[in-house]
Amino acid sequence: MINAVVMPNPGAPLETRAFDRPALEPGAILLRTLGSEVCGTDGHLWKGQLAGVPYPIIPGHVSVGEIAAFGPGEPPRDVDGAPLRVGQTVTFLDVYGTCGRCWYCTVGKASTRCPYRKVYGVTMSADDGLYGGWAEYIHLRPGVHVVPLPDGFAWRAFLAGGCGMPTALHAVSLGEIAFGDTVLVQGAGPVGLCAAVLAQLRGAGQVIVVGGPDVRLAAARRFGADLVLDIATLAESERLQAVREVTGGRGADVTIEATGVPSAVPEGMRLTRDAGRYVVVGQYTDAGTATFNPHLDLNKKHLDVRGCWGSDAGHVYRSVRVMARYAAQFPWTELISREYGLDEAQRALADVAAQRVVKALIVPARDGTAPAPSAA
Amino acid sequence: MINAVVMPNPGAPLETRAFDRPALEPGAILLRTLGSEVCGTDGHLWKGQLAGVPYPIIPGHVSVGEIAAFGPGEPPRDVDGAPLRVGQTVTFLDVYGTCGRCWYCTVGKASTRCPYRKVYGVTMSADDGLYGGWAEYIHLRPGVHVVPLPDGFAWRAFLAGGCGMPTALHAVSLGEIAFGDTVLVQGAGPVGLCAAVLAQLRGAGQVIVVGGPDVRLAAARRFGADLVLDIATLAESERLQAVREVTGGRGADVTIEATGVPSAVPEGMRLTRDAGRYVVVGQYTDAGTATFNPHLDLNKKHLDVRGCWGSDAGHVYRSVRVMARYAAQFPWTELISREYGLDEAQRALADVAAQRVVKALIVPARDGTAPAPSAA
Amino acid sequence: MINAVVMPNPGAPLETRAFDRPALEPGAILLRTLGSEVCGTDGHLWKGQLAGVPYPIIPGHVSVGEIAAFGPGEPPRDVDGAPLRVGQTVTFLDVYGTCGRCWYCTVGKASTRCPYRKVYGVTMSADDGLYGGWAEYIHLRPGVHVVPLPDGFAWRAFLAGGCGMPTALHAVSLGEIAFGDTVLVQGAGPVGLCAAVLAQLRGAGQVIVVGGPDVRLAAARRFGADLVLDIATLAESERLQAVREVTGGRGADVTIEATGVPSAVPEGMRLTRDAGRYVVVGQYTDAGTATFNPHLDLNKKHLDVRGCWGSDAGHVYRSVRVMARYAAQFPWTELISREYGLDEAQRALADVAAQRVVKALIVPARDGTAPAPSAA
Amino acid sequence: MINAVVMPNPGAPLETRAFDRPALEPGAILLRTLGSEVCGTDGHLWKGQLAGVPYPIIPGHVSVGEIAAFGPGEPPRDVDGAPLRVGQTVTFLDVYGTCGRCWYCTVGKASTRCPYRKVYGVTMSADDGLYGGWAEYIHLRPGVHVVPLPDGFAWRAFLAGGCGMPTALHAVSLGEIAFGDTVLVQGAGPVGLCAAVLAQLRGAGQVIVVGGPDVRLAAARRFGADLVLDIATLAESERLQAVREVTGGRGADVTIEATGVPSAVPEGMRLTRDAGRYVVVGQYTDAGTATFNPHLDLNKKHLDVRGCWGSDAGHVYRSVRVMARYAAQFPWTELISREYGLDEAQRALADVAAQRVVKALIVPARDGTAPAPSAA
Ligand SMILES: [Zn+2]
Ligand SMILES: [Zn+2]
Ligand SMILES: [Zn+2]
Ligand SMILES: [Zn+2]
Ligand SMILES: [Zn+2]
Ligand SMILES: [Zn+2]
Ligand SMILES: [Zn+2]
Ligand SMILES: [Zn+2]
Repeated sequence: MINAVVMPNPGAPLETRAFDRPALEPGAILLRTLGSEVCGTDGHLWKGQLAGVPYPIIPGHVSVGEIAAFGPGEPPRDVDGAPLRVGQTVTFLDVYGTCGRCWYCTVGKASTRCPYRKVYGVTMSADDGLYGGWAEYIHLRPGVHVVPLPDGFAWRAFLAGGCGMPTALHAVSLGEIAFGDTVLVQGAGPVGLCAAVLAQLRGAGQVIVVGGPDVRLAAARRFGADLVLDIATLAESERLQAVREVTGGRGADVTIEATGVPSAVPEGMRLTRDAGRYVVVGQYTDAGTATFNPHLDLNKKHLDVRGCWGSDAGHVYRSVRVMARYAAQFPWTELISREYGLDEAQRALADVAAQRVVKALIVPARDGTAPAPSAA
Repeated sequence: MINAVVMPNPGAPLETRAFDRPALEPGAILLRTLGSEVCGTDGHLWKGQLAGVPYPIIPGHVSVGEIAAFGPGEPPRDVDGAPLRVGQTVTFLDVYGTCGRCWYCTVGKASTRCPYRKVYGVTMSADDGLYGGWAEYIHLRPGVHVVPLPDGFAWRAFLAGGCGMPTALHAVSLGEIAFGDTVLVQGAGPVGLCAAVLAQLRGAGQVIVVGGPDVRLAAARRFGADLVLDIATLAESERLQAVREVTGGRGADVTIEATGVPSAVPEGMRLTRDAGRYVVVGQYTDAGTATFNPHLDLNKKHLDVRGCWGSDAGHVYRSVRVMARYAAQFPWTELISREYGLDEAQRALADVAAQRVVKALIVPARDGTAPAPSAA
Repeated sequence: MINAVVMPNPGAPLETRAFDRPALEPGAILLRTLGSEVCGTDGHLWKGQLAGVPYPIIPGHVSVGEIAAFGPGEPPRDVDGAPLRVGQTVTFLDVYGTCGRCWYCTVGKASTRCPYRKVYGVTMSADDGLYGGWAEYIHLRPGVHVVPLPDGFAWRAFLAGGCGMPTALHAVSLGEIAFGDTVLVQGAGPVGLCAAVLAQLRGAGQVIVVGGPDVRLAAARRFGADLVLDIATLAESERLQAVREVTGGRGADVTIEATGVPSAVPEGMRLTRDAGRYVVVGQYTDAGTATFNPHLDLNKKHLDVRGCWGSDAGHVYRSVRVMARYAAQFPWTELISREYGLDEAQRALADVAAQRVVKALIVPARDGTAPAPSAA
Repeated sequence: MINAVVMPNPGAPLETRAFDRPALEPGAILLRTLGSEVCGTDGHLWKGQLAGVPYPIIPGHVSVGEIAAFGPGEPPRDVDGAPLRVGQTVTFLDVYGTCGRCWYCTVGKASTRCPYRKVYGVTMSADDGLYGGWAEYIHLRPGVHVVPLPDGFAWRAFLAGGCGMPTALHAVSLGEIAFGDTVLVQGAGPVGLCAAVLAQLRGAGQVIVVGGPDVRLAAARRFGADLVLDIATLAESERLQAVREVTGGRGADVTIEATGVPSAVPEGMRLTRDAGRYVVVGQYTDAGTATFNPHLDLNKKHLDVRGCWGSDAGHVYRSVRVMARYAAQFPWTELISREYGLDEAQRALADVAAQRVVKALIVPARDGTAPAPSAA
């Protein structure tokens, strides 16, 4: 049997359930989970804040595993087109089933709005199979986008970013940072920290992080932020003043919002200079409204405000390459505050909710007794 | 003497004052005014809604005139680099004095934020000279960007767009309309009408105008709008439904806001499809705040919202070329509802404020007795 | 039986063969052909100038037909997501099978380089089925991107552009024409003529067409070109001079190459102004080399040169919308010089090769005796 | 008196001449030269390979100095808008006099094509004053764009990049590198080495340098290149193969040409993947023609080829910020192979021509006896 954490319903205690080893269709992959992240999305899932979730689910949308078995026929290929091999360490895009034929996929070129997309760990039901990462094994259906980790790049290093890295990579790319720009990041969670690192890998002239609590701000400093502003001790007006002081009075050239708090959005508009760019990526759930002044905050500033939502295979592929290439410069694994076994998943959720940790991982085999699929 | 309309102070009645013929410095031009537009900005000026206005002023920021005289030395050159000639019919960029050396001019590439810019008819005082278009003559200082009207292109046709044309050209360019896109324009004033025309000159698949009153909606139809939605008769939810009906349920690909009403901005976000583009150009003065939902209206939609403010010489140059090239297709002068002499300027302001006219012009010589400069 | 024109091998005479009515798999469509274009690609195919063609083939890659039947199960959906209906008049993207999973599809975002793509009428064999448009019926396999023609938009009007319209739409989009730009088109074949029209639907300030022979230059004039330069009577240096004369000595802002002649490429670099954009779309087959001066023609000019290749579903969808919306302004069907029955296909090829026609169509039912599928 | 190196004519021996201390007009600055670069442009000047050079000239276009004196009136301001101070260490944009009013400055937004631009050390005559960096003092005329070096950032570190840094920054920006891209740099001179560094500051997944000789390839490795290909030992076909081997057979995502050799351009097209971007920045002088295949190398590849020419104030400003911010990561001064006094300028030219050095500096005061302006 294969053990997996199941979230039966919003608010209900997590359970560990035993699953049969799945029958693998042609093109499918059975992945032995090495680790899977715990993130804010999992908290939203547990609080029932996301629409269209087919509870019960196995949480865990960004994961790394070792290929244990393939379905019949030719082995599937990775994103680079190379045939996969049993034993390879890989990650995969959690989004599955993008159709390639709808209006958004073809004309709109916004595949994240494809109505057919499903997401491992989020919109695929545990009743249907091992479709989440908080499990000893994950069933990758035919067509899942698989990205191997390069030799010498530790799987923990990749998971240290979690979904925060492809999300931040998407947002930072949208920010169109120019060399020497001042980049301001609102929020010091995984997305914000990854954005602060990636800003340096776009040649930012200075990186400012506005957020909290201390454990996260310390991480921001360790990962190269030039200025860290603590929202617990500085009022909004003080934050604005502090940013203007280091930007010739103008504000940030590019701001990345990664907070989830609606009021952060008008604040971010004001923290950004006239004719700057503001990327809003943190408003992942409906947390209410915000009020702004269209003349002062948008029109007269001729600000560019870009909502950013969803990752695609390119974001994961690029995340792997960037993290591996700059692993000597950025000690990714220091972002991992703690690892949890399957039976500690509830506690992991709580620690993330309380912001006691920077990044938390579920590591099914952390006691060293991961069952082989044949034992299932 | 030279007669000019002077706005002494916000709310004070307009006066006609007589000015001496100005001494022309090297590079300066004396322009005999053929016409000057009356627009919403003039209304804002009269209500004192713009900051930093050095009353008394001569209103009139977009004008066409005939070159009457030059200052000593070589004649100045037009934007194309050709020497200007006495008798030529020209328009000019109202923005004067952009420095070319400040951070915004050099690094930020946002010359509309140059702190040294001044604007004819808006931020140049009547105490200093003939720096507005509601006058028999206009004094163009050295360095003003001058654009001749092509042979065969009537000056009234150019003024029919007024400042609305370069403003709309800027906004529509920012909208990055793709061939076949549905373009929605909020507002049917001069900017909105020009945007509706320009959308067709970007190959829009359909153009929707949301606005009022009737006189403007009729103009929208005459100038090619495929669908016109009257805000006087349709509630916000009905407008949203009407737009969705003709866009496969998605909303507009590109929306251009040209209303000046804060609440139009969140509505525009909702009228635009996911992953679309929304250009906010109409919020020219501070008319208060608006409330939106960052998750639903921005992030999950991954909308691109672009504030648009100010025109540069390129916008005027391109407006002239586009209006002249497509004059057979779009009967520009039909946009002019009425022309007023200098002594009727107060009435022109009132007619514009009441939206009784589409475009109003001040025509100093409309009685046929324009004084020659030598008579000044 | 169903009649189709078959090209057995390069250089071999075209034949009409009879095919069985195909068995339709779930998601497939049987289309009764209304018309199919004859274009330069067909000439290249007959001369064996394209690699990887699985002769025998049924030529005809851009076609319009009426839906005659579906495979079992739910009817397939069009690009907009609406279920298709028997009797509908539709066109479809000739490219079929783009995988959505390879590096180019996912990371490179250049689906035209997907190694799995096949093309109706070009890289699909007549041995495998009715996969080309010069046939009474076409077999659309599951997943083909289908675009209905809007009510009131004649199928002949759409085919008047042929593959030239989506190709030109792609190229013109890459050209990033700004309002008022001078756009120069090299070549007056279907791609060039469509580009000249589309340039006007981007608000070009003037459109110049360089090409020949007379029949095509006349069409260019009829479709709005402001200046037409005949390569038969003007030497390269005279063409350069003529272009500079109407562009203030600078050259075109945007140039679209649509000739197929290698030497046109360095000429096009020189016809374009410094810091302009040059889109090369006509070099569809290997016709040899060209020589240029990297310093003078590229670096010092800081020219942007963009190779353009292949269309996707978005290009076809947008072509349909643009052609339908502006059908009153541009009399598309005038581009059709002649229609040919299936038995006249050889002659159609010859007429196209000799440039005796602007656009040629194969119309299987032109004698009015199209067999119904049940008769097959 | 003030000593300066004068290049009397192409090919004529350099001379040291004594100049009077210049009279400073309002807004002018007298700069005591700390150092000035020697670069390929100086070699081109000495060989007479640039058009429009008003010999005699004082070479040295990128320089750092200490502000010695101002002209009368208010002190000029730096690019950030702050008033400059005597004693400040600054650099400046060598391009002077961009007009801000011509077609290229206003409509074309390509100020590097402004016909009024002059360049310190290149197109300003020694007969007119101290307008080059190989001199004890430099006369900055009113309007020169001045950028102070940040506190703690050594002037030698900035000059280690020389003009190569803003040039590379411009080219790399045009390359639009995405996170994880493979970036290939052709040429290992100062521009190439700076591009290789900047590619890492755009988050490149791997950086390949193709060039020579050994001293430069060693620098490429020291500054982070992942793969270095020596043109002295590898044939063109071997270079292509080597690049394909590390790019999944596709070629580089982005290639930056920095060689000056015409044949490098078609090679660069082939080294770049389909749908990639190729920036040509090294073809600074006319070194003859190159031959390519428009179908294979451009159209079918749908390659984007971008000529890059000239820097503006933004490029210098951003270079200073980037070099200062990442000075701990990249030991800039290691790029300086040797410093020369004014009397050694001829030898510096020879060493640069022979590629015996990576970066060479002229340091007027290297013997420690720089005369004060009052001694002049
Ligand atoms: Zn889809
Ligand atoms: Zn996550
Ligand atoms: Zn300025
Ligand atoms: Zn106005
Ligand atoms: Zn593919
Ligand atoms: Zn074709
Ligand atoms: Zn200029
Ligand atoms: Zn240099």
